[in-house]
Amino acid sequence: MDYRKLKQEFKTPFYLYHFDEIKENFLKLKQVFKARKSQIFYAMKANSNLSLLQMLAKLDSGFDCVSMGEIQRALKVGVKPYKIILSGVAKTREELEFALKSDILYVNLESEAEMLLLEDVAKFLNLKARISIRVNPNVDAKTHPYISTGLHENKFGVELDLARKMYLYAKNSHFLEPVGVHFHIGSQLMDFSPIHEAAQLVAQLVKELKALKIELKFFDVGGGLGVSYENEKEPHLYDYAQGILAALNGLDVTIGLEPGRFLVAKSGELVCSVLYEKITAKKRFVIVDAAMNDLMRPSLYNAYHEIILPYNQGEKSLCDVVGGICESGDFLAKQRELEQTKSGDILVVKNAGAYGFSMSSNYNTRMRPCELALENGKIRLIRQRESFKDLIALEENFLN
Amino acid sequence: MDYRKLKQEFKTPFYLYHFDEIKENFLKLKQVFKARKSQIFYAMKANSNLSLLQMLAKLDSGFDCVSMGEIQRALKVGVKPYKIILSGVAKTREELEFALKSDILYVNLESEAEMLLLEDVAKFLNLKARISIRVNPNVDAKTHPYISTGLHENKFGVELDLARKMYLYAKNSHFLEPVGVHFHIGSQLMDFSPIHEAAQLVAQLVKELKALKIELKFFDVGGGLGVSYENEKEPHLYDYAQGILAALNGLDVTIGLEPGRFLVAKSGELVCSVLYEKITAKKRFVIVDAAMNDLMRPSLYNAYHEIILPYNQGEKSLCDVVGGICESGDFLAKQRELEQTKSGDILVVKNAGAYGFSMSSNYNTRMRPCELALENGKIRLIRQRESFKDLIALEENFLN
Repeated sequence: MDYRKLKQEFKTPFYLYHFDEIKENFLKLKQVFKARKSQIFYAMKANSNLSLLQMLAKLDSGFDCVSMGEIQRALKVGVKPYKIILSGVAKTREELEFALKSDILYVNLESEAEMLLLEDVAKFLNLKARISIRVNPNVDAKTHPYISTGLHENKFGVELDLARKMYLYAKNSHFLEPVGVHFHIGSQLMDFSPIHEAAQLVAQLVKELKALKIELKFFDVGGGLGVSYENEKEPHLYDYAQGILAALNGLDVTIGLEPGRFLVAKSGELVCSVLYEKITAKKRFVIVDAAMNDLMRPSLYNAYHEIILPYNQGEKSLCDVVGGICESGDFLAKQRELEQTKSGDILVVKNAGAYGFSMSSNYNTRMRPCELALENGKIRLIRQRESFKDLIALEENFLN
Repeated sequence: MDYRKLKQEFKTPFYLYHFDEIKENFLKLKQVFKARKSQIFYAMKANSNLSLLQMLAKLDSGFDCVSMGEIQRALKVGVKPYKIILSGVAKTREELEFALKSDILYVNLESEAEMLLLEDVAKFLNLKARISIRVNPNVDAKTHPYISTGLHENKFGVELDLARKMYLYAKNSHFLEPVGVHFHIGSQLMDFSPIHEAAQLVAQLVKELKALKIELKFFDVGGGLGVSYENEKEPHLYDYAQGILAALNGLDVTIGLEPGRFLVAKSGELVCSVLYEKITAKKRFVIVDAAMNDLMRPSLYNAYHEIILPYNQGEKSLCDVVGGICESGDFLAKQRELEQTKSGDILVVKNAGAYGFSMSSNYNTRMRPCELALENGKIRLIRQRESFKDLIALEENFLN
């Protein structure tokens, strides 16, 4: 990658996404489920750039949306409504109305109250709302630290008993049609046994419902596929699929998959420039022109991102890579061994394709970076860098 | 406050700022320093809404900026360049050039490398750059937990010895003019003794420099004034001022003050609506239409914000107040005693005037809320709610 040429043309900081790698990830995931009907619904909260969505849509991807805005993004790039599902714990009446009018595939329900609201909206529109219920299968997470925050303690999904009750209610409603079941037990999972255990439990529910003449078509296993940020051993996709396929023995359902991070995390980079090296009595800082407003993950989750200096050589020493925002929490990496740098050197933050730009802000009145795509060996701009004019557009008319 | 009427007119969520209170805070701070020349430079990173800046500018406030965008905001509302200063550890060449061309009052330097860059820029423009140096006075912070992250461990400022060296260099440069000194030892301070200690040390430096014929005009004590978020005892402004005034005995300098949070934090509210109550086997959740993208402080800093339900009565019980974003980290408050709610009830997050909207994002393709001001008993819109069109404006032209 000729980062210098890109910097000359686009300035820094910028995000760069490798579309061809993302396509490969998509096809690999599709492939391991080939024994059955499956549909990938890309969880666009990870990265919702329109050109990225369009590229995935051409691969026949579906889309998992968590807001009206996300549905609008999918529709904007020409996705067919029957490839769109809506998830999330705080759907508003307005959002549900929009989803039903748009005739999306189904709504993942997160609570009984939401079901009743959706029924009311469907009644108002004189439609039948296709629903799936997000169940909280209560798998024992004690040995799985990534999900050890406790399933009973989180805001997502409903317990199995309540789910049964809700399916029965929906079956008898004129305005609801149960078509699927959904679970998602955590993010960035490196051990699949809890997902497989959950799949078994939820498959059992599907069988029970079948006996009650409630025939679900979609078995949505959510996302959660972990990726390696720091040389962790990545689990095998094949194993992931096998455990799920095994759970579905004897059931005629389409598998729904909601990968987000898995598709895009490792295929994105945040490219920036060194502004200063600052050596204090106690510490070395490499100060760059990207900051926590551009990439929130290190500050928010203490997340690890690999850092490389593609054009620097020589001895390495420990340093913090920090941005220019006026708080100590503004860092991109801590305690890393890096070569000496000088002003203008290019520094690349790797694995920044997921939850990078999508969480970015204008904190400190910083303009958000531009986004580039590399596809078939060609670079193209897919989002313009913000300007000051963009930032004040919604405020300036209210000045006295 | 008739929140219901506001909701009817503007929908929720929205930010509401009490401009009259902010004015009062400004005048109170000005008042305790009346024994000397002083200039308030509002640290606009706390809240940079243009109408808010305009209101402060009318009170004769100066502005502490940390980016080119922030200088542009100040200029946009008609602030005179000599009321603007530029701070921050990652100033780019472009920003320094812009600052010098705009003829702002001075640049707060954070490192030697930055001084040399500024000198180079000034030379290029054939100007003399007025500078102040941010010193790290190394006060013993052991007993003051808010600043216990360690002054030697952070990226800000330069040590006293280096500062001396830099002032001498600047004095002898054709393109630099030392006019001030700056320190800022931490944010949200509830005990002023470290600030007073720092002021003593920095005043000593000013005296030494005077003996070397370097006569500084501005003694910039930064910000850091703590506010009470959770019934903490707030220290007295008077004491704050007295300690600083005492340190300046015998010096003819103008005091620079950089309050951010102090001016605006307690005079802002994030007003939202309850969407659902969700009771699981283990927990009660109140799900609202604002989320971590609107107010990041609870998720990022585990910050406490008071929550009130202005129209609800009856028994209270423990709950978490959460938003609709698909992660467990999305909460506005945890383990609070609140009245029972129903969909549509108004919930107010208090003390959200600082680092609220300024840190907001479009995560989950959520539109950022509108902002309202209450001034002289009248409500007015000061920033429009974002629309889907706004969100995709910089990407849609790049679709195939």
